[in-house]
Amino acid sequence: MADGTTASARRPSGQRRADAQRNIDKILDAGLRLYSSRPGVSVAEVAEAAGIGRVTLYGHFPSRTELAKALMDRAFEETEAAWRDVDTTGPAGDTLERVLREQWHLMERNRNLRDNIIGDVSPQWLRARHDPILKRIEDLITRGQDDGAFRTDLPLSWMLTALYSLVHAAADEITAGRLTTEQAPEILVASLRSLYRP
Amino acid sequence: MADGTTASARRPSGQRRADAQRNIDKILDAGLRLYSSRPGVSVAEVAEAAGIGRVTLYGHFPSRTELAKALMDRAFEETEAAWRDVDTTGPAGDTLERVLREQWHLMERNRNLRDNIIGDVSPQWLRARHDPILKRIEDLITRGQDDGAFRTDLPLSWMLTALYSLVHAAADEITAGRLTTEQAPEILVASLRSLYRP
Repeated sequence: MADGTTASARRPSGQRRADAQRNIDKILDAGLRLYSSRPGVSVAEVAEAAGIGRVTLYGHFPSRTELAKALMDRAFEETEAAWRDVDTTGPAGDTLERVLREQWHLMERNRNLRDNIIGDVSPQWLRARHDPILKRIEDLITRGQDDGAFRTDLPLSWMLTALYSLVHAAADEITAGRLTTEQAPEILVASLRSLYRP
Repeated sequence: MADGTTASARRPSGQRRADAQRNIDKILDAGLRLYSSRPGVSVAEVAEAAGIGRVTLYGHFPSRTELAKALMDRAFEETEAAWRDVDTTGPAGDTLERVLREQWHLMERNRNLRDNIIGDVSPQWLRARHDPILKRIEDLITRGQDDGAFRTDLPLSWMLTALYSLVHAAADEITAGRLTTEQAPEILVASLRSLYRP
């Protein structure tokens, strides 16, 4: 009896939590869809697309930065899941080129999202958020250095940073209209091949 | 007589303009000094260092973005003046390496400034602001392609973008503590040599 009363007293607060979570999900779903579709999306547009009032949205995400970080966290969940299935075995040089080509669609899919959040989070935060993926590439570079496929006269950290910079630069060149979606991965592969060669 | 009266009537407004310009100069001088000295500088700190009230500062620069753009404009005036004296004659390959080494101190001097404004202006604005300097490098790359020193299988725009990205990545690596000020220009030269080689 006492238990029943307690549970019933709790229900409204549990209900509020469930409502809040549903709103958060609506905001992140609509936000990810909208941020990924084109640059220059406003928070008001996200609220409207989510069917949520702006006050409610700001209650969950008080600033554009907090919304941006939550959207990137959600996008990275999918990206990291995709990377878990990536086969990085085989000769390091060929494997790096294959992986860059195969995974380019993730970069292409997240290009507008990145453009929308770039003013809201620090470059350091964004780089750190890439760490799980970069760790896998770092292992691949190390393997290539061990078996003679890649140069060893540059710091490993720099080789990784150069790749990170050039991948994002290639994506930005598509946005700027200076590269096509088809050109970008091939130009990236050709550039890193030259850069990594012993 | 009429002229004298008019001139005298105008004086207060002329005086106000002179005061305003003096305040703007104080803000930009203090801002450039402070923004260049370390990351994480607040607008309130700029006002304090300039000996100006925050309300006065916001009167001239209503947002952090407007202050950032004015500071970058002033910094670029000096950087462009330095670039006007750069000798880009001689074999393109050697010249590019020499110029990268000689001009690295400008990048190093503006590293903290860039870190302070990166969240306030778009990457597109920042890239466009570099155009006068990039134009001189583009001419050098074209000359190197013509005389066989540089590859011709990558778009000229990409070769320029790769340089722009890697230069800034190298500066960021110093801030992140992954490269030293001495290493950075040499690693950059070695990377671009590999990337540009036919």
